[in-house]
Amino acid sequence: MTTLNDLITPACLLDSEKFKRNCERMRAVAEAEQLVLRPHVKTLKSLQAAEYYAPVSGPVTVSTLAEASAFAAAGYTDILYAVGLTPNKFSQLAALQRLAPDFTVIADSQAAVAALVSFASQLDVPVAVMLEVDVDDHRAGLLPDSSELIDCARVLNNSANIRFRGIMTHAGASYDCDTKAAQQAMAVQECQGIAAAAERLSEAGINCEIVSAGSTPTALAGVEHTGITELRAGVYATFDCVMAGLGVCSTDEIALSVLTAVIGHQRDKNWVIVDAGWMALSRDQGTALHNVDCGYGLVCDEQGQLLDGWYVCSTNQEHGIIRHRDNIEPPENLFGYGNLLRILPIHACATAAQYQQYYVINSACEVETIWSRVNGW
Amino acid sequence: MTTLNDLITPACLLDSEKFKRNCERMRAVAEAEQLVLRPHVKTLKSLQAAEYYAPVSGPVTVSTLAEASAFAAAGYTDILYAVGLTPNKFSQLAALQRLAPDFTVIADSQAAVAALVSFASQLDVPVAVMLEVDVDDHRAGLLPDSSELIDCARVLNNSANIRFRGIMTHAGASYDCDTKAAQQAMAVQECQGIAAAAERLSEAGINCEIVSAGSTPTALAGVEHTGITELRAGVYATFDCVMAGLGVCSTDEIALSVLTAVIGHQRDKNWVIVDAGWMALSRDQGTALHNVDCGYGLVCDEQGQLLDGWYVCSTNQEHGIIRHRDNIEPPENLFGYGNLLRILPIHACATAAQYQQYYVINSACEVETIWSRVNGW
Repeated sequence: MTTLNDLITPACLLDSEKFKRNCERMRAVAEAEQLVLRPHVKTLKSLQAAEYYAPVSGPVTVSTLAEASAFAAAGYTDILYAVGLTPNKFSQLAALQRLAPDFTVIADSQAAVAALVSFASQLDVPVAVMLEVDVDDHRAGLLPDSSELIDCARVLNNSANIRFRGIMTHAGASYDCDTKAAQQAMAVQECQGIAAAAERLSEAGINCEIVSAGSTPTALAGVEHTGITELRAGVYATFDCVMAGLGVCSTDEIALSVLTAVIGHQRDKNWVIVDAGWMALSRDQGTALHNVDCGYGLVCDEQGQLLDGWYVCSTNQEHGIIRHRDNIEPPENLFGYGNLLRILPIHACATAAQYQQYYVINSACEVETIWSRVNGW
Repeated sequence: MTTLNDLITPACLLDSEKFKRNCERMRAVAEAEQLVLRPHVKTLKSLQAAEYYAPVSGPVTVSTLAEASAFAAAGYTDILYAVGLTPNKFSQLAALQRLAPDFTVIADSQAAVAALVSFASQLDVPVAVMLEVDVDDHRAGLLPDSSELIDCARVLNNSANIRFRGIMTHAGASYDCDTKAAQQAMAVQECQGIAAAAERLSEAGINCEIVSAGSTPTALAGVEHTGITELRAGVYATFDCVMAGLGVCSTDEIALSVLTAVIGHQRDKNWVIVDAGWMALSRDQGTALHNVDCGYGLVCDEQGQLLDGWYVCSTNQEHGIIRHRDNIEPPENLFGYGNLLRILPIHACATAAQYQQYYVINSACEVETIWSRVNGW
């Protein structure tokens, strides 16, 4: 059996038991509310991982056409590409539709709708489209009370070669909600916003088969998600320091970590230098504005036990600097030259993106298998 | 001929003429000072790119053993792995040495030296080792005036199966030097520090065949680099917004850019939304403390002309938000739905790391060829 000592550092580890528990937690929420769960596979981008939280018979969300192609080739039929499509990607639509009959794209403007309708008229089968709705002023989407929403839906609904499936939103602003109450309020805002959009469309005679919403903090906020038909979320499968900082999970539930080795010290500064820099951890500093700034990651020992107060305070390309919040001396038994450590990611989507594969480990830290990742676009 | 319109966005572009001019600039500096140039290939990690600035007959610096393996397999013989080696990587040493006789590792502690000496005694040929020296309190390395420096060098020099080649340093603190004068002072500090270390070793009877120093800002500072035998630098091949912000290059000399398409707008906020998020640009915000914060990148039109004042102010995984510093309305001819734009990277090493290949373009924006990249460890 391969152990952590056999791996070249840095390496990305996935704790299979924590991962499966996290997946089950979200599945239970959706089931209790009788909502369809459409997992976003953008964090791990792995077909093997998806077997545990995004069954091939069910719907998924993807962030790139590369993911869409891989999942379609593996037999997934209901794939939502949740990034606005542009004409330079239209040529891939036909092939994806052949493999995945419910491959669905989104649009959020009259310009995008017009371009899609025009392109779809050249295809043999209708293009499935949803409209993106903006519920939190955060990023993309049409406002629920806008006339453009109705106009866009009407054009799609009246186009022979378009299959209008409904509307979707993502309350990305929930990542800034640092209390349970704020997350609950955002979950309500997310559902009410998209439900209001669906209601207006219904009044205009346009039916939404799907009303889709979600983010990990709003999905797990513990409120009922009324007015929607499906939940979307992604990072819950692994969690990370950002989610722990928001109280959505505990640090002990974080399933992803980066294995690293101690390459040296600067003893006068109480620094431990490891071979995990930003190339291995990513440049994400998503906890910088939290009560506890975790820098580039929290430090665990080789077995994954959190070493209280130790964090990666600074990174270069292939170097990470670990220090203690209280600037204490690093104990040699934990931080000696060559010792292995594990770093909990600030943002799992960004950290995982730095790798081509995951070493899946059991609770005895043995490598059970390797899961691959679909990178690129 | 493939044009930019044929590419799936986001895509990483390399302007071959700018790239070659940048390479020539550093080559000329080393030649004028009669210094060996040992380019760091960590920015592009591409054998095809290296042909233009790191000839196979000459020395190179690498940041991973994956790069070392690729370059050794391609015929490079003098490869410096500039990250402290740990025992879990020792097993790769023998294979690398067979391919690249001058494959060289570094150490910066007695613990690392002892482990290396012990391991080397089992090998058929001596292991080439250099000691890392700290000249700027920035990261790793032994202090030039430390007794540990002499002790480590003596152990290496006296070990039958070690070939002690000399000392190296990297003034990473130069990235915080925002004036030419500060960069020049750091270049002098870097050279004086490592030269002092070499002098102490010489007095102890230990010869340094190589005294190596450099970073792009100190190498291009315009001062004479006295006391060293070779220059190391890497990001100069492409430059980036950090280097432009420090005045080391102009934005027009930045050879790397990310091609992206406009997917939508939030017109009430004067936002343009593109399909290049942090996955395409990286999370690096290295200009955040500069006089001009370039966010996640400066915006150019499809031909690469800088659009003054436009920058990527915010990113999610696959979404970037572009705005103007003065919050003006985005002109439709430049920022219409589906338009192509190009983003100049904040930190080229980090942006390039998000890709598996580069589209090499000429001044007419035609794709001349594709260069691949060595990712992973």
